[in-house]
Amino acid sequence: MGEAIGEPANLRAFAALESNVRLYSRSLPDVFSRARGSIMLTDGGREVIDFLSGAGALNYGHNNHEIKAAIAEYLASDAVVHGLDMATPAKREFMETFDSVILRERGLQNYRFQFTGPTGANAVEAALKLSRKITGRQNVISFTHGYHGLSLGAAAATGGRLFRVASGVALSGATFMPYDGYLGPAVDTSDYLRKVLLDESSGVDAPAAILVETVQGEGGINVAGKEWLQSLQAIAKDVGALFIVDDIQMGCGRTGEFFSFEFAGLSPDIVVLSKSLSGYGLPLSMLLIKEERDAWRPGEHTATFRGNNLALVSATAAINVYWRSRTFSEGVQRTGDLMRRRLDSIASEHGNSFAVRGRGMALGFDCQIAEIADATARKAFEKGLVIERCGPSDQVVKFLPALTIDLETLNQGIDIFEVSLTETLEQARVV
Amino acid sequence: MGEAIGEPANLRAFAALESNVRLYSRSLPDVFSRARGSIMLTDGGREVIDFLSGAGALNYGHNNHEIKAAIAEYLASDAVVHGLDMATPAKREFMETFDSVILRERGLQNYRFQFTGPTGANAVEAALKLSRKITGRQNVISFTHGYHGLSLGAAAATGGRLFRVASGVALSGATFMPYDGYLGPAVDTSDYLRKVLLDESSGVDAPAAILVETVQGEGGINVAGKEWLQSLQAIAKDVGALFIVDDIQMGCGRTGEFFSFEFAGLSPDIVVLSKSLSGYGLPLSMLLIKEERDAWRPGEHTATFRGNNLALVSATAAINVYWRSRTFSEGVQRTGDLMRRRLDSIASEHGNSFAVRGRGMALGFDCQIAEIADATARKAFEKGLVIERCGPSDQVVKFLPALTIDLETLNQGIDIFEVSLTETLEQARVV
Amino acid sequence: MGEAIGEPANLRAFAALESNVRLYSRSLPDVFSRARGSIMLTDGGREVIDFLSGAGALNYGHNNHEIKAAIAEYLASDAVVHGLDMATPAKREFMETFDSVILRERGLQNYRFQFTGPTGANAVEAALKLSRKITGRQNVISFTHGYHGLSLGAAAATGGRLFRVASGVALSGATFMPYDGYLGPAVDTSDYLRKVLLDESSGVDAPAAILVETVQGEGGINVAGKEWLQSLQAIAKDVGALFIVDDIQMGCGRTGEFFSFEFAGLSPDIVVLSKSLSGYGLPLSMLLIKEERDAWRPGEHTATFRGNNLALVSATAAINVYWRSRTFSEGVQRTGDLMRRRLDSIASEHGNSFAVRGRGMALGFDCQIAEIADATARKAFEKGLVIERCGPSDQVVKFLPALTIDLETLNQGIDIFEVSLTETLEQARVV
Amino acid sequence: MGEAIGEPANLRAFAALESNVRLYSRSLPDVFSRARGSIMLTDGGREVIDFLSGAGALNYGHNNHEIKAAIAEYLASDAVVHGLDMATPAKREFMETFDSVILRERGLQNYRFQFTGPTGANAVEAALKLSRKITGRQNVISFTHGYHGLSLGAAAATGGRLFRVASGVALSGATFMPYDGYLGPAVDTSDYLRKVLLDESSGVDAPAAILVETVQGEGGINVAGKEWLQSLQAIAKDVGALFIVDDIQMGCGRTGEFFSFEFAGLSPDIVVLSKSLSGYGLPLSMLLIKEERDAWRPGEHTATFRGNNLALVSATAAINVYWRSRTFSEGVQRTGDLMRRRLDSIASEHGNSFAVRGRGMALGFDCQIAEIADATARKAFEKGLVIERCGPSDQVVKFLPALTIDLETLNQGIDIFEVSLTETLEQARVV
Repeated sequence: MGEAIGEPANLRAFAALESNVRLYSRSLPDVFSRARGSIMLTDGGREVIDFLSGAGALNYGHNNHEIKAAIAEYLASDAVVHGLDMATPAKREFMETFDSVILRERGLQNYRFQFTGPTGANAVEAALKLSRKITGRQNVISFTHGYHGLSLGAAAATGGRLFRVASGVALSGATFMPYDGYLGPAVDTSDYLRKVLLDESSGVDAPAAILVETVQGEGGINVAGKEWLQSLQAIAKDVGALFIVDDIQMGCGRTGEFFSFEFAGLSPDIVVLSKSLSGYGLPLSMLLIKEERDAWRPGEHTATFRGNNLALVSATAAINVYWRSRTFSEGVQRTGDLMRRRLDSIASEHGNSFAVRGRGMALGFDCQIAEIADATARKAFEKGLVIERCGPSDQVVKFLPALTIDLETLNQGIDIFEVSLTETLEQARVV
Repeated sequence: MGEAIGEPANLRAFAALESNVRLYSRSLPDVFSRARGSIMLTDGGREVIDFLSGAGALNYGHNNHEIKAAIAEYLASDAVVHGLDMATPAKREFMETFDSVILRERGLQNYRFQFTGPTGANAVEAALKLSRKITGRQNVISFTHGYHGLSLGAAAATGGRLFRVASGVALSGATFMPYDGYLGPAVDTSDYLRKVLLDESSGVDAPAAILVETVQGEGGINVAGKEWLQSLQAIAKDVGALFIVDDIQMGCGRTGEFFSFEFAGLSPDIVVLSKSLSGYGLPLSMLLIKEERDAWRPGEHTATFRGNNLALVSATAAINVYWRSRTFSEGVQRTGDLMRRRLDSIASEHGNSFAVRGRGMALGFDCQIAEIADATARKAFEKGLVIERCGPSDQVVKFLPALTIDLETLNQGIDIFEVSLTETLEQARVV
Repeated sequence: MGEAIGEPANLRAFAALESNVRLYSRSLPDVFSRARGSIMLTDGGREVIDFLSGAGALNYGHNNHEIKAAIAEYLASDAVVHGLDMATPAKREFMETFDSVILRERGLQNYRFQFTGPTGANAVEAALKLSRKITGRQNVISFTHGYHGLSLGAAAATGGRLFRVASGVALSGATFMPYDGYLGPAVDTSDYLRKVLLDESSGVDAPAAILVETVQGEGGINVAGKEWLQSLQAIAKDVGALFIVDDIQMGCGRTGEFFSFEFAGLSPDIVVLSKSLSGYGLPLSMLLIKEERDAWRPGEHTATFRGNNLALVSATAAINVYWRSRTFSEGVQRTGDLMRRRLDSIASEHGNSFAVRGRGMALGFDCQIAEIADATARKAFEKGLVIERCGPSDQVVKFLPALTIDLETLNQGIDIFEVSLTETLEQARVV
Repeated sequence: MGEAIGEPANLRAFAALESNVRLYSRSLPDVFSRARGSIMLTDGGREVIDFLSGAGALNYGHNNHEIKAAIAEYLASDAVVHGLDMATPAKREFMETFDSVILRERGLQNYRFQFTGPTGANAVEAALKLSRKITGRQNVISFTHGYHGLSLGAAAATGGRLFRVASGVALSGATFMPYDGYLGPAVDTSDYLRKVLLDESSGVDAPAAILVETVQGEGGINVAGKEWLQSLQAIAKDVGALFIVDDIQMGCGRTGEFFSFEFAGLSPDIVVLSKSLSGYGLPLSMLLIKEERDAWRPGEHTATFRGNNLALVSATAAINVYWRSRTFSEGVQRTGDLMRRRLDSIASEHGNSFAVRGRGMALGFDCQIAEIADATARKAFEKGLVIERCGPSDQVVKFLPALTIDLETLNQGIDIFEVSLTETLEQARVV
């Protein structure tokens, strides 16, 4: 691992100096110098289309110039960049904008903002802590193939064995239940969840919270249905647990609406946001907490970079630019439909072994076989497309283009994927 | 908590919208609009001197213009801001600069860089995971009054009961041992540590790591001695544990040298850096890992905002501006000496109940009594000084001015502290 | 709780001196002075039939005289009663007898004996330890409604919330999966188990062991099917886990055969025995460990009363008296069939709301409603029958008569149950 | 391990059939057929003196005939042997006898009896559960070199690394503090305990209980002082924790008084008894719980063999025979003094490298070097003395003769020890 031999020349410094833990400089073996919207430029001058979008952190594209203007102005003015959680105009403006433009417009009133350390994992940790504090319980329900971060509290609720084993301790505090569809279409897994939670002898301890992604991004673009999600919310209420939606990857418009759970009419006790929240790839995370659940005492959960002001400024700009009307949201849904049709068509052309899943502009092309997904993604990168895999064995190709992508670039990217897949399948057939 | 009544008018929005967990908008009840160097400006136009420095995240002052230039240029060029851990010129330049200017100059060779999620807690989590992975052990030695962050893995190694209880689960995986001086000057607590670790029946499990701050910032500016630290490093080696220095708050020049452990000639297996690493208050965290300890497999610990490029650019600028000669370091030591003399003098003027502790420009004025520290800090804020408290009962006033502060501002700040303390003591006497 | 008021006069000393934790002196409010076979005698001279049999510890009845003779002789001879785990003729004779008469006759060769502390819980603790030691894994699969004891390691694998909460710590180390039939007859829950264990992202950690009762006694007399049990054994093998049958309550002939798993042709890695093992109600517990799994180092698991010699003597006698031919086993099966027919008939007479379950002479009469089971058992005691309830809400009346019971007494007991049930239902109807 | 080759012929069956975990059949490689008082007889007819006494379970010697008579009579009468925790005359008589003869005579009133599963470990588990239930806290303070049993809850409070590692999981829930004398005579380790428990930032969580042995048996016959024990009791009170004395090995007269803590005038919240409680080596364990601490709900902690009636009968007999006057207790103290003088004399004859420690008839001869203790014990066994070792590296020879031993046998045993030690030292000198 990490050996310089075999690495492209421009990556030798990384192989020599960066820890073996580095990941993307291996699967995308090039140096990326500039980026704008959906295009990245390597230091050799090659242009590549980006369907990874910072693992969902760049919903508005790289270096979005409308957002950038706000950051540049803020920086130039010597406004407070780092202020722990002191009160700043930037934070006030963000909260007021988010409250009126996002929350009140959706009938989601009486939420409070908690700015946590600027990682999704830290926000999840805070959400679980608060749930445990409120309920006096320690168990948390999470779901097969769920991903919530890698610090110990969040990792306990994350399904991937690679990550769990790497924790180096036995992770406790979470009980995994089958996600929607995990036991096939005939079984409503929320019935099973309800049964074990109401059963005084099931061995599943009463939970502080039910923690769920409405679409599992890292887990393979698994989509939860409306009724199933509504059942979870009802079960949480019935058993005295908090209902937490982890909208880190699927929020901020990824599924078409700002929150991924709007289609189901949910009102979670806590919503976790991060990734695209800042709109510019800057670290920012927060919780939305129902006012009556805001049981924190001052300073009980804290972090040096909570409430990163520069990111609050870009986050406010992103809301102002994209979310003051329904136009953007409708465009995402249209583009998502288009992607879906093209991917469905590609899947059906290659026989019935492939499956396309997702909502909005979060789509997965399930190759069933990891090697096919791997070879396709590698070929795609050679041909000019950055695309990532996900799922338990990385067998699903994940489509997360910027929500702002133009149709021409989108189609180019899908074309590259299609050719890469076709070539991969032909070679596999020969072998 | 959080009630709008009684809040200053300009803080009402915060009381209404932000979670009760907010801290500094209570102890520093004003809105801060601009900042430069050691001066912050409230939205009412009041100037205050900052001795808190973002809890040590602003060693080079607010909005340092020499560093800002680099950020502004990077932003303007549409270079990659968010790229997960893809290879970028910004990261390469940072690693090469840090390696040659900081590490090699200090004889600290063969360290690898791991960029973790941009919080100190996440970096600590990664360091502990790696130690557990390498050793196959789960226990970690940490110390009374230690602070390492609040995600569950880090919180387990953090001493404060407020934080531990707030975790909502029984924290396990760390054994607390007495820090240097905890049992009085007559007892070398490293002897006790060695004894329990070598004793096959002590009940203290063999540790994966010994995790220590050379000066405990949050814990009350407790200072570990050179020999004690050297003993820890030797014990770690003898018992097959990794030796980890958490230099999140005390690194990046705070004690005079870049690393706080240089004075003791240590070569830790892992060094944890964050806070002032980016030089501009931007979120950035990393581990320095001895090459032979870099046992990670690709992707075992990951995070969306790891390797925040904008912060890498400012971090490189900070090194280039301040650390290419010894001038800056020598200046910090001189200023630290000056602060020390002034605080010692204030302490002795008020009888023998006060103690001054610290190294370099990290100093603590131990009031012994929390109410005195509290009243003094509140008065100081009214008079134009932002200053924070620390220690188990917040009885220590913590001096963390920017390392770049000019002497006039420094002395003004200390004057305000002195007056505030004197008034507090007089009022206490009257009562 | 525990108040003397309202207690029968002969129980006042117990209410005054014994901890509130006492259970049976409440539900069976009398003092029991003598017992023989299936009859107990109260100190007031009342005879009651015993269908509880020491919760399965008295399969051969109270004070079985054929076994008693061996104990009396042993005691009289001043043979070693307590010898830790020193070698004694009593232990040798027991092991050789059990090996030849029980194991080899059933083709179960190459098992080793481990005598643990003389409680079922301690034996389960030892079995789990050994599994963890062998596999280096910490997780254990156990099942909804499972009961394995109340020390922390065993309690973690026990389903009842009353017991789990009473542990006072968050129990970890076990994952509960649905027992056979838990999700209805249409779902083979072993398929689900296999799926989550083979799924690298299910969140269920690789297990050290699968721990199962073939019939859940405390859990409500839930019966696992042959194929389901065989699937568990196969899954354990496939995922590198040990397969452990907890035969504490269902072993020693309770289901008709000596081991409850003989009907399914299983060969567990570890078998846990206790309760009726000594044959006389004396404390004794042991593990049968497949030779190749016997990875203990000397003294790694120890206990003062392991290998209780007096109990080994009675255990040997029990084998010699009852297990040298198939006669006894066949009788148990015949009697079990008879019980089953009578209970089925009682159930069908009272409409379709009742269910009868079980194997051999372990039968449950599921009243569905806890109050009916409770009232029936109380009435039965008044009328001269000791009978216990089980299941998640204690809604199942549990029939565990001595395997040696004569048919007249058996029928008398069932008659009492029938009358008690009928009266209860009539009164319920009136209300 | 466990290989038949090299085993004496009469042990082959054990090597072949019993698990490798067997311990005493290795260190005492013979088969023991009969025993009476302090003499054991091998099946080859050799008499050996027993200074191990069932690891403290045989304080009244093997097969004590005065106690045996009571058991024999009970068995013959068909009184209830196994009755779960049903009320029996045997239990009533035991409780009333213990209450009047032991408790009230010592001014220890208002204690309740809880009969737990008949192992010391199970009783410790129950004591810790109850403490956690009462306080709502999870941490327990235990001490370096402490031994409390091997089920997971008890093992967490046990110091030995061999046992901890064998648990196969990371043990949590206990914090180990230095026992009296652990940091040398100059340091009062109870001061350190008080300091960390009152320090809000020590990292040591508020405890549910302080669990201590007044003399550590397995830990090396380490003796706690009166003031130190009194400090523990006071600290427990001050921090809201329960004070638990584990008197499993040191109770029932071992130190001269019935309870080992009488000399210090303690009144623990919970006392744990087992081992010699039954007086005949029969399994029995119980808690004495202060009435106001008896917060159990019925059935929260249960076990099949709790309240083993046969053992209650022998326990009552033992009290009646030995504890109705002070004669027995005074005799133990005299014999203890005699042993002490002889061992001191042996120690001083062989230079200043040996140390003798203990109280009453629990004495340790610390050889400092494990090999010397090992060789001495082996030689002693060859010469006719069963004697055991203890301490972190088994370097202490442990003297636990029956309290009823006659002086001639006692002196014979000590003579054998002395000769064995002398020979060992001579051989060591030659080598």
